Amino acid sequence: MKKLQVDLGARSYPIYIGEHLLGQTALTTPYGQQVLIVTNETVAPLYLKKTLTAFANFKTDSVILPDGEKYKNLTVLNKIFDTLLSQRFDRQTTLVALGGGVVGDMTGFAAACYQRGVPFIQIPTTLLAQVDSSVGGKTGVNHPLGKNMIGAFHQPLCVVIDLNTLQTLDDRQLSAGLAEVIKYGLINDLEFFEWLESHAEALLARDFSALSFAIARSCQDKANIVAKDERESGQRALLNLGHTFGHAIETGLGYGVYLHGEGVAIGMCLAAQFSARLGWMSETDVTRIKRLIEKMVLPTRIPKGFTIERMLELMQVDKKVQAGKLRLVLLQGIGKAIITDQYDPQLLRQSLKQD
Amino acid sequence: MKKLQVDLGARSYPIYIGEHLLGQTALTTPYGQQVLIVTNETVAPLYLKKTLTAFANFKTDSVILPDGEKYKNLTVLNKIFDTLLSQRFDRQTTLVALGGGVVGDMTGFAAACYQRGVPFIQIPTTLLAQVDSSVGGKTGVNHPLGKNMIGAFHQPLCVVIDLNTLQTLDDRQLSAGLAEVIKYGLINDLEFFEWLESHAEALLARDFSALSFAIARSCQDKANIVAKDERESGQRALLNLGHTFGHAIETGLGYGVYLHGEGVAIGMCLAAQFSARLGWMSETDVTRIKRLIEKMVLPTRIPKGFTIERMLELMQVDKKVQAGKLRLVLLQGIGKAIITDQYDPQLLRQSLKQD
Repeated sequence: MKKLQVDLGARSYPIYIGEHLLGQTALTTPYGQQVLIVTNETVAPLYLKKTLTAFANFKTDSVILPDGEKYKNLTVLNKIFDTLLSQRFDRQTTLVALGGGVVGDMTGFAAACYQRGVPFIQIPTTLLAQVDSSVGGKTGVNHPLGKNMIGAFHQPLCVVIDLNTLQTLDDRQLSAGLAEVIKYGLINDLEFFEWLESHAEALLARDFSALSFAIARSCQDKANIVAKDERESGQRALLNLGHTFGHAIETGLGYGVYLHGEGVAIGMCLAAQFSARLGWMSETDVTRIKRLIEKMVLPTRIPKGFTIERMLELMQVDKKVQAGKLRLVLLQGIGKAIITDQYDPQLLRQSLKQD
Repeated sequence: MKKLQVDLGARSYPIYIGEHLLGQTALTTPYGQQVLIVTNETVAPLYLKKTLTAFANFKTDSVILPDGEKYKNLTVLNKIFDTLLSQRFDRQTTLVALGGGVVGDMTGFAAACYQRGVPFIQIPTTLLAQVDSSVGGKTGVNHPLGKNMIGAFHQPLCVVIDLNTLQTLDDRQLSAGLAEVIKYGLINDLEFFEWLESHAEALLARDFSALSFAIARSCQDKANIVAKDERESGQRALLNLGHTFGHAIETGLGYGVYLHGEGVAIGMCLAAQFSARLGWMSETDVTRIKRLIEKMVLPTRIPKGFTIERMLELMQVDKKVQAGKLRLVLLQGIGKAIITDQYDPQLLRQSLKQD
């Protein structure tokens, strides 16, 4: 088992990565005597029982949400509060998120709000949640007009990544997770990007040692950035590479049509393409990025029928908009991401049309 | 104009108390260039236009919520997000709460959650909001099973109390606010309690100098407690004197049947009565407390038809429950409140029956 640390002073916490970690009592120590596990209808039959064994000495209950990004809203969030209140969970309760990014984001936000804040534990069961959403304390739900627009920063007590849960993940979800893995290489880790180029097949074949390395490296890269800028006043926005484009696609097509990772994959290609158009990066690098994304069985182009105008309109509803100007995460090369609003919007439009 | 300070390190903020403060640009400096004013259908016709003049140099818009405690829920909260997103308010937005406690709590919570947190300003227009809910950063909404169960700690940038807004407040609302004023006397300020005994008529007659004194003293008493214990890990719970009983009545009768202050008034009488039953306080003091509460035209007894069993059941859904045991704020005399779970639940039942 590997153990990493997210350094955030009093809010620091460990990330455990290994095999057969589900149900291990020693890793997950809740505050108080009450534990509510939040999961979804896909994950519950597979891992809920095993997870509950880790909390045998606590009062436990569970909430099973419907599965999918389209359920990540205030109405479904309220189901968690319904159970907490009807089952008399008090302020000494720890919530446990067992599932993918949607479950993690919603459980974390419920924990941030229940009785004005209770602790929570992340047990991510998808690759995407393991390498990205379970680490860093961003929680929240979607609004019909924008993704993740309602939420809170709320750090977990710990993150428990059981590699065995990846065995039940379908291929499409695995690829979606690999999009976020590639992202870390592009942001500031050329060496990792090169490693991914030579280990794509191993990852797709679910080779445990390759997955373990990729997950740990991704978590470490993310933890380093989060530790410097917990609330995204600066550098943390780099983690949104591909996300402004991706969120627009997700929101525009309706939540759940494209997986989050698929949106991000397309978004990274568009960011690379625009960066080249601005003369900041070579076309060779763009091709190299697209090739790796394709290798991971991910989309690289704006979906057919999705107009550039709609894309640009939706991109304006982004948390990085300031005074009407959209800041984008762009690339000055592989491993050199920057945040900038110094670009010509007309060039952005042209670059998108090119796709 | 008086200026008080809530001392919370980086989150410190001023409270301004005076006449004709609405519309004064100098008091309310938002972050960023965008201001959304949240108010309700009662307050909007009276004060919205005047309030907007203070933000003439900003992009402004407003949301007008229905008036009343029964609208303090996630569904109505979402109306604030609808406007923020459809009108393209970005992370550089400041929300302004213009209204009573419901508007303040909901606006503060919307600010805590919008894009994971934007600043907000409190402009309370009811006595209750001026002396209690606008100060201290408690925000949130109700759940059908419990009051204020979903929320966040989120401190405002400033609190602007314009005494003139009290001229349009109806008598019942004025009295409800005076319940929270009495509360400060009971908690730790005997001198203030005595002042209230001799100034009840002046307050009910809306004498400006009496109101100004009572509001400033209440805010100062609250600020002192909040500064020592922002997140209610200890002494701040004293501010809930009367609230566990009061919330049970509010929730049980349906939000809005009794005003919050009316519930608190009854709750303080019950707390006093139970404290006397435990032998901690004299019957003379109980009578003195009830007399002042009656003088302020407030109820002192459990409403007819509300059973003790229902009361006790609802009291179990309280943020001060720990491991099944309900902590109560009780009195060891006027000006000497304590938080305790050291009481015989049977005696509590008997004490309530006595009422």
